[in-house]
Amino acid sequence: MEPREEFLVLAFEVAVQGVESGAGGPFGAVVARGDDVLASAHNQVVTTNDPTAHAEIGAIRAACAALNSFQLDDCELYASCEPCPMCLGAIYWARPRAVFFSATRDDAAQAGFDDAFVYDEIALPAEARTLLMRRVAHPGAAAPFIAWAAKPDRVEY
Amino acid sequence: MEPREEFLVLAFEVAVQGVESGAGGPFGAVVARGDDVLASAHNQVVTTNDPTAHAEIGAIRAACAALNSFQLDDCELYASCEPCPMCLGAIYWARPRAVFFSATRDDAAQAGFDDAFVYDEIALPAEARTLLMRRVAHPGAAAPFIAWAAKPDRVEY
Repeated sequence: MEPREEFLVLAFEVAVQGVESGAGGPFGAVVARGDDVLASAHNQVVTTNDPTAHAEIGAIRAACAALNSFQLDDCELYASCEPCPMCLGAIYWARPRAVFFSATRDDAAQAGFDDAFVYDEIALPAEARTLLMRRVAHPGAAAPFIAWAAKPDRVEY
Repeated sequence: MEPREEFLVLAFEVAVQGVESGAGGPFGAVVARGDDVLASAHNQVVTTNDPTAHAEIGAIRAACAALNSFQLDDCELYASCEPCPMCLGAIYWARPRAVFFSATRDDAAQAGFDDAFVYDEIALPAEARTLLMRRVAHPGAAAPFIAWAAKPDRVEY
């Protein structure tokens, strides 16, 4: 499928608005389904004190709320810039049918946003990361999975 | 630094509560700072229709709200299971000083949660992913970064 230029331009416009309002970094995102914009969002990390309030996360959450669904079936996500690993992970869980972006992770790095570093770190095994991250084996770790398997009305996603 | 077993056990307990209440998948997380639990959360994807409502995201958001900060300085995150790429990305942005987890991405996969697939996909270049994801070069993509550079009171994060 082909991207719709007007939705990409809307993502740029929303991003500029977010910067001008002081909400956060220079990023915008739009979720569309066919001809319809379901949601748009800019980064709001600063005003909400929420490090997860990236544009894509905001647009995904708002579009899911509008659809009353945790899946973005038949939807497209437009992002002013290449999604960071957090947002890319969110995209995989939300399952839109396509993602279109314009600026790259290197453009983001030049503006001071270290998405490229996070991409590099995530590809490493836990013990090789800059972040102190350790697996702690514990017999209690099985209990949530046992409860899940035993729940007959569980909703899979 | 060493993990505190009681905080890991709390993450397991919260995860079981989340399953039993029907909130979502079998995952729990805790943010602590020294002796204090700042926040705990379980997965809430199903009840909130929010694909980003993983345990770690919920705990990070709640702890940041408690601290009135978008950074988890001097905090530790405990997760019942290895964080998925979305949550790991969120952890990098929130910058706790340590992460401890117990079950692995393979345990999650066995329970039907395809974190391992998302890890594999994120490591690929965009054009090689299962997800249709395409860069669309556009002159408008520079506008948000130009606005950002021109904003004297921007808050970097």
